[in-house]
Amino acid sequence: MATTTNDALQNMSSSADPDSAQPSTTPTLRDLKANRPAHGPNMNWVAKLASGIILDVRARAPYYVKDWTDAWNYRVVPATALTFFANVLPGIAFSLDLIETTQQYGVAEVLLSSFMAAFIFSVFGAQPLTIAGVTGPITVFNKTIFRIIQGQPDAPNYLHFVGWVYLWAAIIHWITAILNWCNFLKYVTLFSCDTFGFYVSWVYLQYGVQVVTRQLDSSSLPGAFVSIILAILMLVVSFLFQSLSQKTLFHRHIRRFLADYGMPISLIATSGMAYWGTFNSANPQTLPISGAFQPANNRSWLVPFWQLEGRWVGIALPFGIILWILFFFDHNVSSLMAQGSEFPLRKPPGFHYDFFLLGITTFLAGLLGIPAPNGLIPQAPIHTTSLLVMGRPTKKDDEERQSSNLDEKNSGYIAEYREQPVGVVEQRVSNLAQGSLCLVLLSGPFLHVLNLIPRGVLAGLFWFMGADALQGNGITQKILYFLRDKKSTPKDEPLRRVRKSRILLFIAIQLIAFGATFAITQTIAAIGFPVIIMALIPIRTLLVPRLSFTAEELAILDGPTASPFTMESVGGSL
Amino acid sequence: MATTTNDALQNMSSSADPDSAQPSTTPTLRDLKANRPAHGPNMNWVAKLASGIILDVRARAPYYVKDWTDAWNYRVVPATALTFFANVLPGIAFSLDLIETTQQYGVAEVLLSSFMAAFIFSVFGAQPLTIAGVTGPITVFNKTIFRIIQGQPDAPNYLHFVGWVYLWAAIIHWITAILNWCNFLKYVTLFSCDTFGFYVSWVYLQYGVQVVTRQLDSSSLPGAFVSIILAILMLVVSFLFQSLSQKTLFHRHIRRFLADYGMPISLIATSGMAYWGTFNSANPQTLPISGAFQPANNRSWLVPFWQLEGRWVGIALPFGIILWILFFFDHNVSSLMAQGSEFPLRKPPGFHYDFFLLGITTFLAGLLGIPAPNGLIPQAPIHTTSLLVMGRPTKKDDEERQSSNLDEKNSGYIAEYREQPVGVVEQRVSNLAQGSLCLVLLSGPFLHVLNLIPRGVLAGLFWFMGADALQGNGITQKILYFLRDKKSTPKDEPLRRVRKSRILLFIAIQLIAFGATFAITQTIAAIGFPVIIMALIPIRTLLVPRLSFTAEELAILDGPTASPFTMESVGGSL
Repeated sequence: MATTTNDALQNMSSSADPDSAQPSTTPTLRDLKANRPAHGPNMNWVAKLASGIILDVRARAPYYVKDWTDAWNYRVVPATALTFFANVLPGIAFSLDLIETTQQYGVAEVLLSSFMAAFIFSVFGAQPLTIAGVTGPITVFNKTIFRIIQGQPDAPNYLHFVGWVYLWAAIIHWITAILNWCNFLKYVTLFSCDTFGFYVSWVYLQYGVQVVTRQLDSSSLPGAFVSIILAILMLVVSFLFQSLSQKTLFHRHIRRFLADYGMPISLIATSGMAYWGTFNSANPQTLPISGAFQPANNRSWLVPFWQLEGRWVGIALPFGIILWILFFFDHNVSSLMAQGSEFPLRKPPGFHYDFFLLGITTFLAGLLGIPAPNGLIPQAPIHTTSLLVMGRPTKKDDEERQSSNLDEKNSGYIAEYREQPVGVVEQRVSNLAQGSLCLVLLSGPFLHVLNLIPRGVLAGLFWFMGADALQGNGITQKILYFLRDKKSTPKDEPLRRVRKSRILLFIAIQLIAFGATFAITQTIAAIGFPVIIMALIPIRTLLVPRLSFTAEELAILDGPTASPFTMESVGGSL
Repeated sequence: MATTTNDALQNMSSSADPDSAQPSTTPTLRDLKANRPAHGPNMNWVAKLASGIILDVRARAPYYVKDWTDAWNYRVVPATALTFFANVLPGIAFSLDLIETTQQYGVAEVLLSSFMAAFIFSVFGAQPLTIAGVTGPITVFNKTIFRIIQGQPDAPNYLHFVGWVYLWAAIIHWITAILNWCNFLKYVTLFSCDTFGFYVSWVYLQYGVQVVTRQLDSSSLPGAFVSIILAILMLVVSFLFQSLSQKTLFHRHIRRFLADYGMPISLIATSGMAYWGTFNSANPQTLPISGAFQPANNRSWLVPFWQLEGRWVGIALPFGIILWILFFFDHNVSSLMAQGSEFPLRKPPGFHYDFFLLGITTFLAGLLGIPAPNGLIPQAPIHTTSLLVMGRPTKKDDEERQSSNLDEKNSGYIAEYREQPVGVVEQRVSNLAQGSLCLVLLSGPFLHVLNLIPRGVLAGLFWFMGADALQGNGITQKILYFLRDKKSTPKDEPLRRVRKSRILLFIAIQLIAFGATFAITQTIAAIGFPVIIMALIPIRTLLVPRLSFTAEELAILDGPTASPFTMESVGGSL
């Protein structure tokens, strides 16, 4: 364990070290694996049932109390603020289309979904860093279901049908967790994560454009123009804060403040601008709201989906399978990225157990008639980043970083002045707090505040989050490697050891997969896009190795998303 | 002279070296000074008459042919393009108010003024790097005269009166040049130049805001909103290009291209956006135009100012004196900054001679009824910057630079990858060409093109030029030194040797002077602002040394704007 003079970190480090803070008899994940009774090719498959879940629980349980006490750390405050805004606003924005198309949901349903996910994963989850909420894909999924069943002559009740779809998906989630299928995550390398992250980034950018163009069609022209102004300002000011936080211009405390609160400040400031006289008179569109704590259409919160006709129960199954594919990929990739190898984590993960929990949240979502939540990209990695403790690393830390972090090395700044991540405040409070804020928003006065946020600002937020995720993405980084002046590329850059044609081939495969995914979501077949995303895994495992890459080249171009420590939960990396 | 492998530079270096390219008998400026007949305290003042002008001409004349042949260099192309846009568009924009208030000028007058200045200074001038044109102050000056004389019961013809004001100013210019008063420029240190540059930057920023707000009042609301969108886009895209040109992201040729053409490309692209369907329908305001080659009000181009009544001729004198104060400061500071110590110049300057020429252009401006042109900040230094030849410096060059350039050192990049200025393409063609393009704009078809440029884009251009000049300004740099994380400040930063209280005191004096200047230009007394600006010189020479600075501290905080080589024309630095 790294030694450091940072008090906060020392406190954290010691608490994260099972040998010191926990009774020395507590088994580590590695111990548990070594001791499990049936191990090896001959082991009885029944004995393996739920073994992943059990190991996850056994590994994480000893840290449970510390997960709460460790939250007594300032970093929890900015992480909560940043994650709250990054989670709730895009969630609502993505849902606008679903709300308007189906008339079955309101803003209250979206907020409740975020709260439920945060509550269950922060209180019961093994991976409380993974932020879950309402994603773009689930809103597309629910909307597509609406369109399909509305076309039928004897259309069932929409929420009953979705309830069954969710139940089927939940059941497959539980089966997946019990059969340890999350072990397949070892095949989910940076190749798939980067491609999916790239796709999500572009969905964010596209959605920002749509928020604006929709107003050009529907609302008054001056209002739409004001929305464009606010969107650009939100984007520019957010990036300005980010860029200031990365320069040597201010004291590091100020820089950290800008990094922590730049986006929330931009959001509040640009929202405020909408109420400046001239802009206000143009009346730009704001977020819609519904009644406080009230579902749409005055229905009761409980959906009696068991009343669905038998025939439709069967039809719901294939939809449930597609939802399972989506969540298996989306939620687990979010978890992997939230626990990526760039974060110096010290508490064990739990993919099997958390996927079981995701089955429960999906089931509850169906029961309550709300969109099902799952792991969020880029919010989950944003959350972990915000919890990073920076400091002067020891020499050992420094060497480790050098081999893992491409981005840092290329920036060209003089290294001696820069702080590096030396720890993460791993705890459950920030996730719970950001979710609880969603519940607060459900109350009357705060719903009114939500209603004050102009849609233009939301568009700017989409652009900022999309562009921000894009610039850190592995595909972008490889493309930038090509554009970069070779004189400015460090001599020890690993990509220098890969033939240029092979880098291009690797990027090309990723871009084709991205293009196919992005294209299909623009069509009526949108609901099938999880299948294409899922196909990334066999493409990487079966096809890519047959192309003319050397083993060393592939090792440089690709790699596990999370560190060996994290991958232990799913049986290690490839 | 630095040796370098760059062919273009070698060609230039050798041509700039009088010992090799010129006959060895050609005297250098230093030789001429040493040999001048009457030198010393006892010399007859009559013998000194026009000695500055004569020495300037003798020093520069040997380079005259080379000044044209040296222009066979690619850098002249981007320098022409950049300077043209940076000169003509703000010139027109500043004049809009004057045009509308007085109804005595049109766009044609502004373009002609720019051309005349460019023609005279590039063909006959000793300092062809100094770009002259229509400034903000001269438009304020002319407008104030209009307001004052219109209030009189027997108001004279406006252009006749201005003609006399200009003639008086011209006469004082000639006297100044003949009496070698430009030698006072040795007292014009960075203290005054930075304060004036700071003031001009804020005028640019303010003017950009005014261009936008005026539309909010006058034109339709959607049109004004589109102007705001275009202004923000122009600002952001220009800075984006600039920031890309400073990163290690692209090959250095691409980066130079972005630095060279980023602003013109942004300008054309954002102007084009105004004609996109939805934006076009809002009909944002564009630049006004007049008839081709035609002065306003169908008058003839010659103004018979000699018809002015005798009484008004006398009243014109104090105005002429104020104009002379303005031009003495503004033009010479522009020349100093265009030949600042950060530029490795090798051809001699000529302040006395050029100030004599400025008298001629001022007189001609009165005769033609056009706003009098003078040296432009920030356009003149932008022009020289654009003519910089970059390369790997020899070790000697490097050491020289280190001691002179604060900015470069603080940026924190790894020095080995960076190119540095090793020469300037000193020639007359880029100045002449950018002025001739103004003449081209006077023709019918191109006037139409000018009419297509939206005022919003102009506002963005003002913001970009103002903010760009501001970030390089010495006052800003000293303020940033305070904000900067001390860990990131290089150990050899000279400001570290100055007591913090003294840095603050020095900045405070500059900011108070800036505040007074800026405040007075907002009032009816605006016409008196050159007096305040001029007062900077005695403040620095008489007041500042009496405050509790040590000599070393003052030497670090202040310094000559131009190098000793350039300052030789005005009798050396302090």
